Amino acid sequence: MRQLTVDALNPALQKVQYAVRGELAIKAELLRDKLKEPGHGLPFDKVINSNIGNPQQKGLDQPPITFTRQVAALMEWPELAELAPNVFPKDVVERARELSQEIGSIGAYSHSQGVPFIRKNVAKFIEERDGFPADPAHIFLTGGASAGVSLLINMLISSPNAGILIPIPQYPLYTASLAQHQGIPIPYHLDESSGWSTSVEAIEEALIKAEKAGVLPKGLVIINPGNPTGALLDEPTMEKLVHLCDKYGLVLLADEVYQSNLHKPDTHSFTSFKKVVSKLQSGVPLVSFHSISKGVSGECGRRGGYFECTNFSEEVLALIYKMVSVGLCPPLSGQIGVDSMVRPPKVGEESYELWKKETDTIHAALASRTSLMSARLNALPGVSCVDSPGALYLYPQIKLSKKAQEAALAAGKEPDAFYALALLDATGICVVPGSGFGQKEGEWHYRLTCLCPGVDEYVGNLEKFHADWVAKYGEA
Amino acid sequence: MRQLTVDALNPALQKVQYAVRGELAIKAELLRDKLKEPGHGLPFDKVINSNIGNPQQKGLDQPPITFTRQVAALMEWPELAELAPNVFPKDVVERARELSQEIGSIGAYSHSQGVPFIRKNVAKFIEERDGFPADPAHIFLTGGASAGVSLLINMLISSPNAGILIPIPQYPLYTASLAQHQGIPIPYHLDESSGWSTSVEAIEEALIKAEKAGVLPKGLVIINPGNPTGALLDEPTMEKLVHLCDKYGLVLLADEVYQSNLHKPDTHSFTSFKKVVSKLQSGVPLVSFHSISKGVSGECGRRGGYFECTNFSEEVLALIYKMVSVGLCPPLSGQIGVDSMVRPPKVGEESYELWKKETDTIHAALASRTSLMSARLNALPGVSCVDSPGALYLYPQIKLSKKAQEAALAAGKEPDAFYALALLDATGICVVPGSGFGQKEGEWHYRLTCLCPGVDEYVGNLEKFHADWVAKYGEA
Repeated sequence: MRQLTVDALNPALQKVQYAVRGELAIKAELLRDKLKEPGHGLPFDKVINSNIGNPQQKGLDQPPITFTRQVAALMEWPELAELAPNVFPKDVVERARELSQEIGSIGAYSHSQGVPFIRKNVAKFIEERDGFPADPAHIFLTGGASAGVSLLINMLISSPNAGILIPIPQYPLYTASLAQHQGIPIPYHLDESSGWSTSVEAIEEALIKAEKAGVLPKGLVIINPGNPTGALLDEPTMEKLVHLCDKYGLVLLADEVYQSNLHKPDTHSFTSFKKVVSKLQSGVPLVSFHSISKGVSGECGRRGGYFECTNFSEEVLALIYKMVSVGLCPPLSGQIGVDSMVRPPKVGEESYELWKKETDTIHAALASRTSLMSARLNALPGVSCVDSPGALYLYPQIKLSKKAQEAALAAGKEPDAFYALALLDATGICVVPGSGFGQKEGEWHYRLTCLCPGVDEYVGNLEKFHADWVAKYGEA
Repeated sequence: MRQLTVDALNPALQKVQYAVRGELAIKAELLRDKLKEPGHGLPFDKVINSNIGNPQQKGLDQPPITFTRQVAALMEWPELAELAPNVFPKDVVERARELSQEIGSIGAYSHSQGVPFIRKNVAKFIEERDGFPADPAHIFLTGGASAGVSLLINMLISSPNAGILIPIPQYPLYTASLAQHQGIPIPYHLDESSGWSTSVEAIEEALIKAEKAGVLPKGLVIINPGNPTGALLDEPTMEKLVHLCDKYGLVLLADEVYQSNLHKPDTHSFTSFKKVVSKLQSGVPLVSFHSISKGVSGECGRRGGYFECTNFSEEVLALIYKMVSVGLCPPLSGQIGVDSMVRPPKVGEESYELWKKETDTIHAALASRTSLMSARLNALPGVSCVDSPGALYLYPQIKLSKKAQEAALAAGKEPDAFYALALLDATGICVVPGSGFGQKEGEWHYRLTCLCPGVDEYVGNLEKFHADWVAKYGEA
């Protein structure tokens, strides 16, 4: 018998890298197991997964929105409405009844593109957000944004020299999907010195370089609000980006999953690319992704989201439909989650007050944690951190001394991974080194989430670790 | 602006075909919409989706297992246990409490491989089924069997000449995934004359032919119980198939999602490939797929399942883990569904009696419908149908006259698709033509599910349609 070895498998998959659940996350799991042993000898009593935007995980415990879960419970067992008549608010009972009528059992496959009724509700949500029409036939419900991104990248990579423009730093889903589907990443740098802004010139430079190298650019990925940066695009820049796509024949892939995570709404608001493309009456093909995993919903485990295609021909839409039909349908629990996200309770409805209180609390906590954490990180020697106006993360830059770099080299690690591993060992805090997202040569960063309660103790641990680090390795 | 055309997209995706949700299914949706119009003029009042194994869909309404849904409802909104204390059976409350303790919120991402506690329960289920050990570290929970199959095929296709052996007829997920990932299908025929049996000789012939054509065989797909055939493998054949994989260095991909859909349990029982490989102490790499969508669970909409890897190295398992981690995690609602499937209520527990009654009813209905339908189909002129002992389908062969074939040609359709379209137009019954699954040159079949209640009226409509067809086109 020949043993099955990795060498006998698809070489493209070996090149896939996904640091958010990589070395650090795997080590964090092992430490969590070790904590259960009596006399474990570790210098902390809990592991904190700051490596991933997972608001409801144990230890973070951002509560789910009650309305969402009440609707979901009734959809699981509709008889509950009669068996426990006084337990559910009236609007929840009505909502579940309406959804049941449209869907039937949530144990049945739905339309592969998602329940038509829910797609109609998504279209209304988009219309109200943007002030431009949206067509349910152009909306695909998904099992989270990732599934949609992977499919679109698979579709766009038409030849071995095809590539996609991705921001650096980027959420590594993009490089991972490109590696899996054998596309070429065309990196363009965001500008840390101006709050991680996106520069059209930097993208054109990357395009010219790519075309010289024989790479065929097919699409442009924009993450807005940014991940890991938290930056927000302004409308003039967005217009320029749309014109750029027009000029170069690029499909615009807009990752807008953090659109409702805004920490400074008075000065930094969100504009969708759908709105900009519509306003410009542009013919640029646009796919915009949204998700129930982020925002105030935080329902990562349901696996739900959608993408909307703009300026796509019927023929291309039919191809997408065919591909999603092979996977049968997105999870109904995620689809219902999307419905609750795009149709929250309205003023005057029984669930409204609680919903308002819950979502306000989540917004306020995230905003205050983000500004407090960035301020205190900025106060550390050799650390600088953009105070991000959106998303769930901070992406501080850390200067590392020669001594630290040499110690990393000796340990066979990238310097930022070496720092992050030491942080995990000392504090139980798991972050993702900047090498997982991309950064300029000779710079180091890490990404951490702003989801942790007890932020004072948490940042205190980061500060203490950094002081010990500087004491050991010196300032850069 | 260059318009985005299908020609500019990945050509591999254009070759993907998935008839289960193809032309017939799309037309059925249009007819369903038309039925809502007043005075629609159609000769039927409902569309019946017999094209897909979707037990809980509207019109079929196989009820979900109450236990499964009660656990799910409590996981959605745990406070219900206190708010409606007398509504839930004690074992359900206890089960949800135990799961909550392990999982935390179902709104959080889980371990990418699936909740460790649920994987342990899956391992116990496999051990009890087979009498051989199972390791939770070798089990991956998935969003249904399809997601796992697609990943494994993507992984095995290591070069442009790599191929996978697939049965003809087959469930088109296999050809669709091979087309998407640019692998070559290596077809081997099942033998209709002996109840769709699998022949090791036929597979070896296919292998020899493939190797002559320069195709590198990487894996062997076996669907047991069969889809669309419903056939069950006996142990001696399974042993031969394992030896064959050994001889040719093939990974055995065992699609065992219908393992609990057995209509003649006294004469036709299910044996897993895991058991056979373990008994033979074989080193053959095996992946076996299971799902909550079929069986008595029928929970298609949750998207849940698992695959177990046997004789896989740590290195290959790590590669699979990395790939599933890019997709973050399978839907929690599906994972909890898997837990309920592998840990049904036990004798003496409060939920047991109802669970027993519900599952007995489903088994009995399916068995009686399958034998009644196959008997009545067999009585039709030009129709022969294996009375399948497993799964959810029948796959009757239909002889078509020259006149019918010419009419199909004139309409630009395959003869079996022409028959199926006429059936849909006349009765509202949607089936899938045999060309979607594969069949021998000059033979025609269709697949229909045995899930429809009111089977007498349903088969009556099939009979009446066939009589009209024969009157119009003559006997073959």
